[in-house]
Amino acid sequence: MPKAAILMGSKSDLPVVKPAVSALRAMGVDTEVRVISAHRTPEEAHSFASSAKDNGIEVIICAAGKAAHLGGVIAAYTALPVIGLPVKTDMMGGLDSLLSMVQMPSGIPVATVGVNGGENAGLLAAQILGIKYPEIAQALVAYKAAMRDKINADDRALQQELKQL
Amino acid sequence: MPKAAILMGSKSDLPVVKPAVSALRAMGVDTEVRVISAHRTPEEAHSFASSAKDNGIEVIICAAGKAAHLGGVIAAYTALPVIGLPVKTDMMGGLDSLLSMVQMPSGIPVATVGVNGGENAGLLAAQILGIKYPEIAQALVAYKAAMRDKINADDRALQQELKQL
Amino acid sequence: MPKAAILMGSKSDLPVVKPAVSALRAMGVDTEVRVISAHRTPEEAHSFASSAKDNGIEVIICAAGKAAHLGGVIAAYTALPVIGLPVKTDMMGGLDSLLSMVQMPSGIPVATVGVNGGENAGLLAAQILGIKYPEIAQALVAYKAAMRDKINADDRALQQELKQL
Amino acid sequence: MPKAAILMGSKSDLPVVKPAVSALRAMGVDTEVRVISAHRTPEEAHSFASSAKDNGIEVIICAAGKAAHLGGVIAAYTALPVIGLPVKTDMMGGLDSLLSMVQMPSGIPVATVGVNGGENAGLLAAQILGIKYPEIAQALVAYKAAMRDKINADDRALQQELKQL
Amino acid sequence: MPKAAILMGSKSDLPVVKPAVSALRAMGVDTEVRVISAHRTPEEAHSFASSAKDNGIEVIICAAGKAAHLGGVIAAYTALPVIGLPVKTDMMGGLDSLLSMVQMPSGIPVATVGVNGGENAGLLAAQILGIKYPEIAQALVAYKAAMRDKINADDRALQQELKQL
Amino acid sequence: MPKAAILMGSKSDLPVVKPAVSALRAMGVDTEVRVISAHRTPEEAHSFASSAKDNGIEVIICAAGKAAHLGGVIAAYTALPVIGLPVKTDMMGGLDSLLSMVQMPSGIPVATVGVNGGENAGLLAAQILGIKYPEIAQALVAYKAAMRDKINADDRALQQELKQL
Amino acid sequence: MPKAAILMGSKSDLPVVKPAVSALRAMGVDTEVRVISAHRTPEEAHSFASSAKDNGIEVIICAAGKAAHLGGVIAAYTALPVIGLPVKTDMMGGLDSLLSMVQMPSGIPVATVGVNGGENAGLLAAQILGIKYPEIAQALVAYKAAMRDKINADDRALQQELKQL
Amino acid sequence: MPKAAILMGSKSDLPVVKPAVSALRAMGVDTEVRVISAHRTPEEAHSFASSAKDNGIEVIICAAGKAAHLGGVIAAYTALPVIGLPVKTDMMGGLDSLLSMVQMPSGIPVATVGVNGGENAGLLAAQILGIKYPEIAQALVAYKAAMRDKINADDRALQQELKQL
Repeated sequence: MPKAAILMGSKSDLPVVKPAVSALRAMGVDTEVRVISAHRTPEEAHSFASSAKDNGIEVIICAAGKAAHLGGVIAAYTALPVIGLPVKTDMMGGLDSLLSMVQMPSGIPVATVGVNGGENAGLLAAQILGIKYPEIAQALVAYKAAMRDKINADDRALQQELKQL
Repeated sequence: MPKAAILMGSKSDLPVVKPAVSALRAMGVDTEVRVISAHRTPEEAHSFASSAKDNGIEVIICAAGKAAHLGGVIAAYTALPVIGLPVKTDMMGGLDSLLSMVQMPSGIPVATVGVNGGENAGLLAAQILGIKYPEIAQALVAYKAAMRDKINADDRALQQELKQL
Repeated sequence: MPKAAILMGSKSDLPVVKPAVSALRAMGVDTEVRVISAHRTPEEAHSFASSAKDNGIEVIICAAGKAAHLGGVIAAYTALPVIGLPVKTDMMGGLDSLLSMVQMPSGIPVATVGVNGGENAGLLAAQILGIKYPEIAQALVAYKAAMRDKINADDRALQQELKQL
Repeated sequence: MPKAAILMGSKSDLPVVKPAVSALRAMGVDTEVRVISAHRTPEEAHSFASSAKDNGIEVIICAAGKAAHLGGVIAAYTALPVIGLPVKTDMMGGLDSLLSMVQMPSGIPVATVGVNGGENAGLLAAQILGIKYPEIAQALVAYKAAMRDKINADDRALQQELKQL
Repeated sequence: MPKAAILMGSKSDLPVVKPAVSALRAMGVDTEVRVISAHRTPEEAHSFASSAKDNGIEVIICAAGKAAHLGGVIAAYTALPVIGLPVKTDMMGGLDSLLSMVQMPSGIPVATVGVNGGENAGLLAAQILGIKYPEIAQALVAYKAAMRDKINADDRALQQELKQL
Repeated sequence: MPKAAILMGSKSDLPVVKPAVSALRAMGVDTEVRVISAHRTPEEAHSFASSAKDNGIEVIICAAGKAAHLGGVIAAYTALPVIGLPVKTDMMGGLDSLLSMVQMPSGIPVATVGVNGGENAGLLAAQILGIKYPEIAQALVAYKAAMRDKINADDRALQQELKQL
Repeated sequence: MPKAAILMGSKSDLPVVKPAVSALRAMGVDTEVRVISAHRTPEEAHSFASSAKDNGIEVIICAAGKAAHLGGVIAAYTALPVIGLPVKTDMMGGLDSLLSMVQMPSGIPVATVGVNGGENAGLLAAQILGIKYPEIAQALVAYKAAMRDKINADDRALQQELKQL
Repeated sequence: MPKAAILMGSKSDLPVVKPAVSALRAMGVDTEVRVISAHRTPEEAHSFASSAKDNGIEVIICAAGKAAHLGGVIAAYTALPVIGLPVKTDMMGGLDSLLSMVQMPSGIPVATVGVNGGENAGLLAAQILGIKYPEIAQALVAYKAAMRDKINADDRALQQELKQL
């Protein structure tokens, strides 16, 4: 079974992370979820990242806020793809988290999704796994079809509602 | 041979895109480079994205600037991983390109790298392919080691220079 | 009867869109309201935009938030005037939505109004129709006069209130 | 012959305005170009806007920078559609000009294009006129086709160039 | 008796304006408060500003939000000092209001205070009047002394509170 | 003769300050220009501000960049009107200088003009003096008329130029 | 006993300051807490800063919001290390406070921590004292170990929680 | 002899770092300068920070740009005071570097100076050492006096220059 890891810098980030867990599970991905801080448990971060590949992990999501270094610190120790999930803060709506993740210097990319974009982080991890595991690619195609049906249903419902106004 | 595509919204984006091409070629990835605009050639975008997987492409980099919709438009038509490469503009150093790419609504992620981060876009594409192709994963490990050696050489050189001041 | 369309990327944008509907109806414009997503229903977007003119639509309002591509995607497929209505988000008060709409590359304009500016989107659509339909132009002149009367009444009321303090 | 006006707050804005003039002329629109300042010649602004419709003008482009009030001041005196063209400044790449134009209070829209988006301002004016004048609508369709051909030619040229690398 | 005017673009700005009224009254300044909109009642704005000096007004405060043109429009028609009071909005905490006021082009200054800085707008008007009316200058000196006493009392109270923790 | 002072935090600010000097001299105002730093010569700042009124100064312009405290520090020691002139920096086009000046806490206003707005700082000082000195008020009215003539001449010249294109 | 001072510009900043007090007390540092305003009690600021060293103070924390000059004003009068603690405001999440503190001109540094980073301000003061007082350095090492234990406990708890979902 | 370290993430940061080296040397501080990258040589960063105290280092300056994690990564492994020196980038004048450094999560402060504030980083390190080494404190007092003399000389020179205009 394909395997992803989701790290968060603080347990308080869990609500942002949960949609990523749900999305991955819905795609049939085994998901390990951890609290590991780039600054408060740097050795755990080092040890996790260095052994991730050997532990069967193929993609890693890192959620963090403010000066959000977790993605960069993990990416420093592994060549697996690392997805950055910036957590909303009071500073310009999370611009600090976003820039701290996305503006990585040359050589160490972090694949960043939108602020509080937990579901998208999970889907991106699934898309990456999907290039290797055809069943995940198929699940994503089904997911896209369901989204389309949902929007089309909303569209029909709206037409009805507005007629009655 | 694994295969990536790099799209740019305008031929003038080529200087930003070139380091992505170089990085992918250095990792042994076959790379198709195209000028396709979300707004000026929307049908080409649709047709490219819809058939990308069948054409053997496994990951797609989209470079665009300003209201940079290319990544989102491509991602709308495929479940392959799409990497967004925001091009620098005059508006706050490319904040318009960055936000137009990274802040994707739920359901359609674009894996965004930093503004003008061409090399990182290429490396990220390689990391994604690396989960399927062990030789790319190995090339990335070697690349990381070379970066480390380069920094350490810079460090030694600097010590020498400063002694002479 | 002149005809406008209002598209929203998600049904949750309806509260921002409603003042646009009201403004257009008040000006005597037949208004079609749809849920169409640039990313989740791209083919519906394509098909809507390509046939809009033939269906008698003369101006299109597109409401969307975050990486708000709807206006650009619609404008790619039609030469009708497209109005962008950016929806407020947590990111700097909707700066992501605004820049994603207004900073369109050369060749494909989107006529952007302020963040959450639903009423202004409707009035702008009416102003555009007003160059062809004199009765709409007249309705707009009456609307301006009513606004002026309202401000003048507020001014008189304030004078009274402050006298009593 | 359909008629547009282009106002600029200062003669130094001419380089930003020129692509708007060219675009309108290319679409067969008679274009009046004026230097009128909201702050330095407010009476000329008032008088121009109040009589614009009677003078046969159907759409007005206003280019201005910094605290760019010209669009709002003109829109206060006419119900014609007013297009705002924000001029680049040193303040965050023209964010001051952009926000001063696009964030209009309810009741008085200004149809804003991107910073220094002269060509788009002209095209938007043409799109607006196009709902009334079929020959302009046709010219715009031809313009879109030419853009598409240009991008496709760039695409083919790039393929050739890259083969030779 | 010296005389100031306070204009607001909408009656809903009154809570931001009230501290300006209080500050001016406390300094013994006769204060006229008006609802006048640059965009909805432009002729009233013109007529107010053109006759302000003849009506005995010596300084004018203009409160407005979003694309806040009121200060600039008033300053266009008078050589009296005009104070801009930007009203907080959802767009980056009122950055739109602030930039629309403070970034005035050369020749037409607007003396801008901080976002929602009603009291400071009133005090600045009093400082301006104070160069002509010695009793206002004296009242301001007393006001400064009272502020100092207040801070010093807070300081002593805090020392006490913290001792008891 | 009425008297203004212009302080700059560093001699390198002189190019930004010069238009303020010119504007004040053109209005017949005696102008003292000083290099005084809030941080490097705080005692000189204290001593200057405390004695400014007794030395016949009626309005003070403070030019400074980055964390621009000069206006606030001067305003802390005097009840004269203090004008803040923010100097452009590399940080978002001088947003640091602007916010450090304009966002003053309640009780101590600084009348802020736009970034690098030297001429406007001088004109604002003249407008303030103009409420006391009728000849300055008259000079300002003449200045406004000359600006209007200049714009109108530009307008006529532009009409001519464009005819010949 | 080592000694630190914490100044706040207004008593309303106390909630932001309290975590700094707690952190310093927990490290065994004697802490003087004062309300002193750069603008409302400038002479107290001068007198405090000039005599701080003689009064046994070794490091000073300055908390302030908006145009936050307190750190700079204190640093102007002492060569002790000054820590800036920017207080959150409505303006872009405290960007005004942050830039007013951190962007100090050359010669007068203010050691700035994050917006509302009270605990970090206290810890930084302790780290500075720790280079002189070994017992504080030891307390900080213990503090770091406790943080690590806390994160590891959170990590284990999370594993348990997620198993039960 | 007291000892400081200056780390930079890339040798290209040297021009920003040099004024820090000069300032520290001028204060009589032994300064070790290193190229160590948080992302490209994470093990060197770990090893440097863990042994810094034992190697006699008492304060560490970290210069880095973009997603500038170096300060945080070093601070994760040591309780010595860490100074963050953000390097200017194209993204809003270095706002990415600044926020990535200053917005550290609770528990791990980084004492941040202004963008490209090399001299201030060096002076802050000296101020910190000055609480333990009286000769450094004295050197800083002399430095402040020299700055004051320089500004006063500039002031006198300016008076002369302006007289001759």
